[in-house]
Amino acid sequence: MATVKLIEEAQAQGKVKEIFDEMKRTWGIPAVPNLFRAMANWPDYLETTWTRSKTIMGKGTLDPKTKQVIALAVSATNNCEYCIHAHTGALKQMGYTDAMLVELMAVVDLYNGFNKFLDGLRVEFDRH
Amino acid sequence: MATVKLIEEAQAQGKVKEIFDEMKRTWGIPAVPNLFRAMANWPDYLETTWTRSKTIMGKGTLDPKTKQVIALAVSATNNCEYCIHAHTGALKQMGYTDAMLVELMAVVDLYNGFNKFLDGLRVEFDRH
Amino acid sequence: MATVKLIEEAQAQGKVKEIFDEMKRTWGIPAVPNLFRAMANWPDYLETTWTRSKTIMGKGTLDPKTKQVIALAVSATNNCEYCIHAHTGALKQMGYTDAMLVELMAVVDLYNGFNKFLDGLRVEFDRH
Amino acid sequence: MATVKLIEEAQAQGKVKEIFDEMKRTWGIPAVPNLFRAMANWPDYLETTWTRSKTIMGKGTLDPKTKQVIALAVSATNNCEYCIHAHTGALKQMGYTDAMLVELMAVVDLYNGFNKFLDGLRVEFDRH
Amino acid sequence: MATVKLIEEAQAQGKVKEIFDEMKRTWGIPAVPNLFRAMANWPDYLETTWTRSKTIMGKGTLDPKTKQVIALAVSATNNCEYCIHAHTGALKQMGYTDAMLVELMAVVDLYNGFNKFLDGLRVEFDRH
Amino acid sequence: MATVKLIEEAQAQGKVKEIFDEMKRTWGIPAVPNLFRAMANWPDYLETTWTRSKTIMGKGTLDPKTKQVIALAVSATNNCEYCIHAHTGALKQMGYTDAMLVELMAVVDLYNGFNKFLDGLRVEFDRH
Repeated sequence: MATVKLIEEAQAQGKVKEIFDEMKRTWGIPAVPNLFRAMANWPDYLETTWTRSKTIMGKGTLDPKTKQVIALAVSATNNCEYCIHAHTGALKQMGYTDAMLVELMAVVDLYNGFNKFLDGLRVEFDRH
Repeated sequence: MATVKLIEEAQAQGKVKEIFDEMKRTWGIPAVPNLFRAMANWPDYLETTWTRSKTIMGKGTLDPKTKQVIALAVSATNNCEYCIHAHTGALKQMGYTDAMLVELMAVVDLYNGFNKFLDGLRVEFDRH
Repeated sequence: MATVKLIEEAQAQGKVKEIFDEMKRTWGIPAVPNLFRAMANWPDYLETTWTRSKTIMGKGTLDPKTKQVIALAVSATNNCEYCIHAHTGALKQMGYTDAMLVELMAVVDLYNGFNKFLDGLRVEFDRH
Repeated sequence: MATVKLIEEAQAQGKVKEIFDEMKRTWGIPAVPNLFRAMANWPDYLETTWTRSKTIMGKGTLDPKTKQVIALAVSATNNCEYCIHAHTGALKQMGYTDAMLVELMAVVDLYNGFNKFLDGLRVEFDRH
Repeated sequence: MATVKLIEEAQAQGKVKEIFDEMKRTWGIPAVPNLFRAMANWPDYLETTWTRSKTIMGKGTLDPKTKQVIALAVSATNNCEYCIHAHTGALKQMGYTDAMLVELMAVVDLYNGFNKFLDGLRVEFDRH
Repeated sequence: MATVKLIEEAQAQGKVKEIFDEMKRTWGIPAVPNLFRAMANWPDYLETTWTRSKTIMGKGTLDPKTKQVIALAVSATNNCEYCIHAHTGALKQMGYTDAMLVELMAVVDLYNGFNKFLDGLRVEFDRH
């Protein structure tokens, strides 16, 4: 259970209610994710983070699927259970199969290993 | 400087020499990367890791660019200087611009932040 | 469940019993925390760690609340469930509200993100 | 050296120039930090991150010194050289002495150790 | 529950079945660990990883007990619940007592703390 | 360069001087390591940490070489340059060759990879 209260949608008011409504409309989801219900304990933080999430995950030079892949690779490396479930779910909705998820994690496996081998022996990068 | 000697290509023999040659041919590179020169202190490990790298980074269900993106996202999260340079270089060769690299790292920024916020407040994932 | 036995207070003897008693007196708590019950499998380690905890968390140049804040920021970054609960509890007893805890984690969010963005692009610090 | 170009202040235009100017005014600094010069490769990301930084580090329920302490504790745990220098500098300007910085890092030392001991033995938190 | 299906031994075919059988024979275990059942979603990855595991954990210059100790120290530092249980179990079978496991984790505690103290103050190594 | 002054041996007084002298005698080293010169900014912390280091690294149920191996595996996983050099040096003095160090890091590579693969797919440990 979270260490702080999660703001209920029914009790959201003013700025928080507006953001909750926009979030559900924008993402086409039936309920506000717990991440944002926790952030709503500080409305200004919720507002600025929501704006920033839309910018970073929105239209840019990388496609949405690639951004979900990055999110999942980061979350696996950090072992964040919430985000792993969220971004695995998003990728499955975008058509990722079990074989693709395992292939993604095989790359995560490979480079987490290489990262530590290289750091642990202080091997320097050799540009060519 | 590395804490172990890096095997010189000129001194490589037997299995190590064969892998070094195959590696340069396969990747079209003029010299063996320091990563594998360090691994060559234990030839069996070099061999099995080289085989595995080819498999994981080779033909599967994900395209080569996505695999480099995963490698860079992992290496940034782990702060591995060697791998960051290696995979940034690979992505630049595949056409990544500075704007694209910054966008990739913006996603890395966003989710490293969210990961810790969620963990730090023990917010549970709410499936819908 | 812990992978090692936690020493029961009723079975503590000698040095371990003395430390357990002092710990409950010093902190005004009804039972010895599991952390120290695990450490008690090696009495010398328990003793030296208890002494050190009292020193580091005791009277110095930083106030007790700031030390709990550091402990929580570290534990959130490491995703250590036990310590997150322990230090969140301590801060609540010191008057921290949900809004304050969310603000603390907003700063944890911000800098975990910035840390990885900076590392991932190898941006160097520019002194002024 | 950074893997992407850092936008020069002299070459900043439009939104980027406005933010650079506001940043120097707001913080009373003679030059834009490299962090934001890297972000300026994607102006929308710079804008939303600048807004969010002002919000999170601005007036809330925690005082500015506590926020710098959190930033440094996080950055030490992540080993981010840039941020460690930035927040150590900020704390020194706020009056932190060497003894205080060492005391801060002693707490970082203590809990990074405890975090891993507890995780490594799967010790569960015992609420009282 | 895992985010991908774990391949059932009864349904394993071809290369996967052969590896599953060899694994149980080699390690003298009654069932294939979930780690490898997850990997089996990509048979080539399973094959190359199994070969590599045998090489790295097999006969070399370090004894099997030392390798399990390294595996547990790494897994504790990363807070990987699965691996902590696996390698704690292996060490217990090799004769490790609770006192020994606590002593191992005391060293993990000590150096996780020192690592972050040193990084956080940018203390440089002084060779003698 | 460290962000705090490192206490010079020539300027050490009282408790700090005594510990510095004992440290050089105990370990048979010509100069006090920078780690402890940084800690000496807070003499009580230096004292309690020195006592604890002697206890944890001293006579117990694990041999000194195993403890250095744990220290190096932890430091590689955390990418702490200072500690990697310190413990690599210690192991070399105890007879570790380059092949042994590479084998140690091969195990670090293997399990850092497995840890993240398992976490990233939420694979649960299956006891037998």
